Parts: sequence; structure tokens; C-alpha cells
Amino acid sequence: MAAISSLSLKTPTKIQSLTKTHYAIPLNLPFSCRSKSKRTGSIGSRTRIRCGLLIEPDGGKLVELFVEESQRELKREDALKLPKIKLTKIDLEWVHVLSEGWASPLKGFMREDEFLQTLHFNSIRLEDGSVVNMSVPIVLAIDDSQKNLIGGSSSVALVDDENNPIAILSDIEIYKHNKEERIARTWGTTAPGLPYVDEAITHSGNWLIGGDLKVIDPVKYNDGLDRFRLSPAELRDEFTRRNADAVFAFQLRNPVHNGHALLMTDTRRRLLEMGFKNPVLLLHPLGGYTKADDVPLQWRMKQHEKVLEDGVLDPETTVVSIFPSPMHYAGPTEVQWHAKARINAGANFYIVGRDPAGMSHPLEKRDLYDADHGKKVLSMAPGLERLNILPFRVAAYDKTKNGMAFFDPSRPQDFIFISGTKMRTLAKNNESPPDGFMCPGGWKVLVEYYDSLAAAENGRVAEPVPS
Amino acid sequence: MAAISSLSLKTPTKIQSLTKTHYAIPLNLPFSCRSKSKRTGSIGSRTRIRCGLLIEPDGGKLVELFVEESQRELKREDALKLPKIKLTKIDLEWVHVLSEGWASPLKGFMREDEFLQTLHFNSIRLEDGSVVNMSVPIVLAIDDSQKNLIGGSSSVALVDDENNPIAILSDIEIYKHNKEERIARTWGTTAPGLPYVDEAITHSGNWLIGGDLKVIDPVKYNDGLDRFRLSPAELRDEFTRRNADAVFAFQLRNPVHNGHALLMTDTRRRLLEMGFKNPVLLLHPLGGYTKADDVPLQWRMKQHEKVLEDGVLDPETTVVSIFPSPMHYAGPTEVQWHAKARINAGANFYIVGRDPAGMSHPLEKRDLYDADHGKKVLSMAPGLERLNILPFRVAAYDKTKNGMAFFDPSRPQDFIFISGTKMRTLAKNNESPPDGFMCPGGWKVLVEYYDSLAAAENGRVAEPVPS
Repeated sequence: MAAISSLSLKTPTKIQSLTKTHYAIPLNLPFSCRSKSKRTGSIGSRTRIRCGLLIEPDGGKLVELFVEESQRELKREDALKLPKIKLTKIDLEWVHVLSEGWASPLKGFMREDEFLQTLHFNSIRLEDGSVVNMSVPIVLAIDDSQKNLIGGSSSVALVDDENNPIAILSDIEIYKHNKEERIARTWGTTAPGLPYVDEAITHSGNWLIGGDLKVIDPVKYNDGLDRFRLSPAELRDEFTRRNADAVFAFQLRNPVHNGHALLMTDTRRRLLEMGFKNPVLLLHPLGGYTKADDVPLQWRMKQHEKVLEDGVLDPETTVVSIFPSPMHYAGPTEVQWHAKARINAGANFYIVGRDPAGMSHPLEKRDLYDADHGKKVLSMAPGLERLNILPFRVAAYDKTKNGMAFFDPSRPQDFIFISGTKMRTLAKNNESPPDGFMCPGGWKVLVEYYDSLAAAENGRVAEPVPS
Repeated sequence: MAAISSLSLKTPTKIQSLTKTHYAIPLNLPFSCRSKSKRTGSIGSRTRIRCGLLIEPDGGKLVELFVEESQRELKREDALKLPKIKLTKIDLEWVHVLSEGWASPLKGFMREDEFLQTLHFNSIRLEDGSVVNMSVPIVLAIDDSQKNLIGGSSSVALVDDENNPIAILSDIEIYKHNKEERIARTWGTTAPGLPYVDEAITHSGNWLIGGDLKVIDPVKYNDGLDRFRLSPAELRDEFTRRNADAVFAFQLRNPVHNGHALLMTDTRRRLLEMGFKNPVLLLHPLGGYTKADDVPLQWRMKQHEKVLEDGVLDPETTVVSIFPSPMHYAGPTEVQWHAKARINAGANFYIVGRDPAGMSHPLEKRDLYDADHGKKVLSMAPGLERLNILPFRVAAYDKTKNGMAFFDPSRPQDFIFISGTKMRTLAKNNESPPDGFMCPGGWKVLVEYYDSLAAAENGRVAEPVPS
């Protein structure tokens, strides 16, 4: 049933968003056999979104914010006459996220009412009185000079680095960007050193501009991975095509080891036991901004491919796609966003790990969030009542089985916990983890990634990984 | 109709909670003619809570957490056998708040689930799926040694300074007190110098203890003002007795000037126009912890009395009572608590001012909160949908009328804005504000308060204000 597409790119494509040591690598992953026309053609029409057995999008309708194809040239010309706001790389990722409806029913960058509800309630009340979850501000910052430039205009053009119009924001509202309050209420700390804050907030403007977004051309990255960036509508089509009667989403921003694989396989087994006939896994690596010491998307995708190749996960029941959101590292606040966006893509089960979207406190020797809070907050979050939360069971290396297994507290001496830090250290030192921790092909990708980093640090240009 | 009780205390009573310069002063304010038996007798029974025309309490039932009178001795003996947690003054104020049901349906200090929902969602979901507002954590902090002392006990006794048992907390849960996260999510800043944080959080323990509260004796302060501390049940009784068909609450922690009075009078007029037959004002000064430069409760009550005496407000349609909560100065977060608690006391209209519960940023030269955010957040807050929010109209001194009037933007030159700072400076310097700004009796109380402060600063013991 699964559509395996073989996408061996002959020429590595440089990844625009990352350091010069990171190259696109050929990939071979299971995802939808979708026609190009779907992506570039009738997008904007809602008629092709068949809900079928799938969970309804937030607000009842998936919002897509594309200009109709026939209107694009016209809108591009309109945009050229408007005041221009230059988008940062992260802004553009949010335009992508909004345009495809991951944040449905948001129709654009947040106006103040939406921003305040997000900060204070992690949810937004709709006109009919119903509540949807919305925990992370999706906002566009501008500075004083941009605000002055806009003047009394009710619309602005959002443009890329080269002043090409990307989108139009209309019926705009400009309001104060209280960065301290935004940071405190989103992260629960204002300590310096939060990656997203340093990257996207600290040096951003003192105003936020909200409004209705219309994207002229679907956002593309030209990094060889665009074909893996399925929109919520496309994912829904794919799940429907596969006759999925349950979709369970696994968000990740790290390489997949056999503990993850065990969990995903076991989740499918449990869903079958619950009576579902065809549960499908959405293996959904985050593709937007990540912090410098995370493994870049290209290498993660390559690693995921090897995991699939090695038969650790079943391609028949797995869809691998890229979630275009940037990463906040905002723990219990952010995990709600990760879950909510997957509802919009058709997932009705969400696997939540230990300390999701967590990281170390930037100043203190402790984790920023309590490891259990993500799971707890997610399970109580307004607007996520329809989503089934599946807590992550702890897997560790079982010495008696030479493989990853669910931790058995009755025989702790048999288990080794291999942390992300430990894993990275091993890969950096070209050492091997215990047999059965990760499939050999996947591990090789990791070692090669760290080799390429080391090479770059030594002043040489890293070679792309051979396919 | 109004019950005016004349409570001229012959001996000023020292206020335990404030500096030695502050004395209890005799008061003469309109409030309920309630029998003592109501307060000390059948409290704990819910049968006497007649909702009548009044808004329902949150969760449908007003929660009162008193031990039945017949059981008090028994419970006191039980308490003596339990591990003891000594309450701070602010802890005791929260015990008071909880015990009378201001925070209904909370049944005691928050457990972690309630704490997390408060921090992240400003609301708590009940078992039936409905949502009540809860924006301010009502928590009890303990330190490592107290935690060790508790050991495996499932109940603890809450005791006062002299180890007298005040209450029992049962079915307890102890969880981490992440102060930084609590502060950031409650105040939207972690800047040092937030009054409540300095007073009640910074030096508090690293654990929070939640559980079911039962108060052995109703909390009293013996400051001459206890009779003004009507519980939500007592206020409901009073409103019912007065046949109120609308109750509009006015929260304040400052002296009342004629601009406030104008607003309250005008609100009643508007409610009559809306078709209500007997709207009653709940003039509800905050009685718990306030910051050092606020006018102390005793003096404010004395000032309010003069305002009533001078006929600025109508005693027939006004109930003056004390709201026992401590003050957080947490702006848009706290105003929700102020409103929610008044629903429990029977108010279905809430007057919200400019920058409610706001203050200056402790480090920066700006207000901590945007002046409009309190009103906006309140109007969108989950669980407060039933409450009618009445935005404060701006009143200023109208030179053409020699009195306070609603600001008329067509003739700004005719108005003088007298800020709180300006008012305090005038009173401190024994100067007079423009005629008509405040009734002379009320102004005199303020001047006397600042005189008493100055006297104390000069090393003399301040005299209590003559009645």
C-alpha cells in the first residue's frame, strides 16, 4: 500500500539555512505519491479536504491562505505597490506554517486579541464560543522605521531578502511588542540564552503587526526536501488514501534510535488491540529553526531514511513528512503547539515524550522544565480534549537482550540509559553504541555528520555524505 | 432599607499586620446587619446560600471549608497530633480566602494539576468538563526541613505563630516550587522588586503543598474591622435581603475620590436604564497584603466611611465590605482573580479600571503592563463569560464645573488629571486638591494618615486619628 518514492538527488543542494558545512543528501523515504498539481494547483480550495474518518481540523475547517493560482500575477503586482516588510528566515517559516493551516483557524499573524489570549490562556475563543488551543505566539515584529513606513496603509507586502513579494498582510493591526512579557509568559523564564529568543526576539522590533495573510506562492526551500513538506491537507489526503482509521503522530527533532522505533511499533500494536484496523504513523521531524547543537534537518532526514531501509519501521504504515515550524524550546507551552498542529494534519493520537521541547536552563544546572510537566500540561490543555495523548514509555538498552526495550523497574541493573549527550559524544568520537541501540546505517549517518562538522572546524570544506 | 451599623470603637486597636504607626480607627459604614450566629454557627452548611436572582458561584456551589462547630474541639485535638506547618501572615490570608469560598470551587491549597492549569491556562477544568477561571496560584510553600518533618503523613496541621492549630490540610500532595517559572508566568516578568514576590515568594520554600483544607475557627484579625469582612455567603445573603437584581462590584485599594464616586453612581444609573430595578453596589476594598506605599486598610476604611457620610454614595444601595485577598500587583493576570472572586460573592457586573492591579515596572521607567491589557484580558478570560465587564470611564477634574466629570475629548483644556502620585504628594504636603476632587472629610483622613507617617518618621509615635 505504501508509496515509496525514490528521490536520489544527483547533486547535493546546499542548505540555505544552515552553516556551510551542511549539505543536502539524497533521500529515500516513504511518503505520499502526490501529484505536483495538488501542491501548486488547486491549493486554496477547501473542497478536496476529505475528513472521512480523520479528526476535524481546529475550528471545523482547515484554513489555507494561498492566493488562487489565477490571481497570483495580479497580487504580485498589488504587492509591489504596498509598503514592504522584509521577512527573516524564521518569519518565512511562520508564513509557511500559517499558509498551510497548521495553525488553523488562524488566518494570519496574530492581532493583539489573539496574542493576549495565547499568552494568558494558551487558547483562543472563536466567535461561536468554542475554544481552540494556541500556545505559542505566531507574530511578526517590526521596528519603528518600518512602522513609520507603513503609515496609514491597511495592507503591507511581506518580501524576501531580495524584495520579492511573498505574501500580502491585509486589514493590519500594529501593537506593542512587550518582549519581556512575551518571553516570560511563553518560556516561564527570562534568563538570557534561550535559543529562539536570541535568534528571533531580542533584536526584533518593538511592534507586532497582525492581519489576514495571503501567500502568493507556496513557500519552498529548494533544499531537496520540499517534496517531504506535506501540508496538512496533503497529509489528510494521504491518510485517507491509505484508509487510516487512526493516525498517531511522533514529533521529533533528533535522530531515531531503536527505543523510539520500539515505542512507535508498540503504539501501533496497542491501537490495533484497541480495535483500530489500520493505524498509520506520522513520523514528523521538525523542519524549521533549531538550535545550533541539534542535528540539522538534512542529516536527520538521511538518518530516518536509513532507519526505514533497515526495516526498523514499516513503510506500509508510516508516513514521513517534515513539520515546517520553527522550534521554541518552550517545554509545556510548546508541546501544545506541536500537538495542536498535528490535529490539523489529521492526527488523533499524539505520542508525548519525557520533557518534550525541553532543554537545560541556560544559566542554572538543571532542566528548564520539570520532565513531567509537558505531559501533564498537554493532558489538561484547553482545545486539545479531542486528541488522545499517548505518554512515552521509557525505553533503555537491555543488556540481557542486546537491544532497546521498555524499562523494567524490577531489574534496573539490566538496563543502560543512553542520553542524547552520550549518543552525540559517541558519534563525535567515532565510537559505536551498544549493538541494537540504533540500526548501523542510521548510526553511520550520525558519525558522518559529526565528521563533517569536525572537518569544517579544521578549516576544510566537508564532503557531502555519499548516498 | 440599608442597614447602617454604627461601630464606634472606643479604643483604637493596633493593627497586627502593619507598622506600629497604623492604628485601628472607629468606623461607621453601611454593611449587613448580620447576626453573629451566622458567622460562627451554621457556617459549613450550604443550605443557607440562596442564589435567588444572584449569579451562581463558580462550579455551581459555594465551597465553604469550615469544620462544623460541634467538631471543632475534636479537630483541634487531631491537629495537635499532626506535623505542623507554620503559616505566614499572607498564608493565613489565603487560608481565609479559601475557607470562605472566594476561590470556589477550590477546596484547599492547589495541588500540582491545579497549579499548572492556573499558570498555563488561567483556568481550571472541572470533572464535568466545565471551566472556571483561576489566574493566581493559591499555594502554600514549605522548605526542605518541613517536607522532611511531614514524611509520609497524609495530613498536616496549619498553625499560627504561637503554634495554635488554624486548619488541617488533608490528602496532601507535595511538589516542586519552581519560583522562577511561577513568577514569570504570573507577572510576565522576573525583574527583582515585585512586592508580592519579595514578600511571599523569594524567601519561601522550594516545595508546594496542596490538599483539602478544613479551617477549625474562622480567621479573625481582631483589628476592629472583622465585622466588615463579610464572606461570599454573607454578601449573598445581604444582596438577597436587599432584593438586589444586579450587583456591581468595585474593587479598590486606594482612597475613593469623586471620580470613582461618579463612576459608581453612573453605573447604577446605567443599570437602571437597562431595566434592573435594584442594582446594588459592592464597594469592596482589598484587605490583605498591600505594598508599603499603599494607604493601609484601616485608613482607607476610615476614608470610605467619610465618603459615605458626605453623601457621595448612597448607603441604601451600597454595601461596603472587605475583600480578604492579598494583592499580587499582577495586572491582567490578577484582575481575573479579582473578578472571579466577586462572582462567588454574587456580583454579576464588574467595573474594571485603567491598568487594574498594575504598577510601575520595578526596574524600567514604564508601567509594568499596558494600560488596556487588563480590560482586554478580562473580557476574553475563560470562565468569566457570565460576568458583565463594565469598563471604567475616565473621569478628571472639570475646571468649568469645579468637580469630577467624565473626560470630554472635545474640550481637553477644561480638564485636570490628578494622578495617585499627585494626590499623595498633595496630602503629604498638607495641601488641598481642587474643590470637588474629594469630599473634605475623606481628604482630611488622608492628610492625617500622612501626618501620622511623618510623625513616625520623626521618631514620635503617631496618634490615632480621632473619630
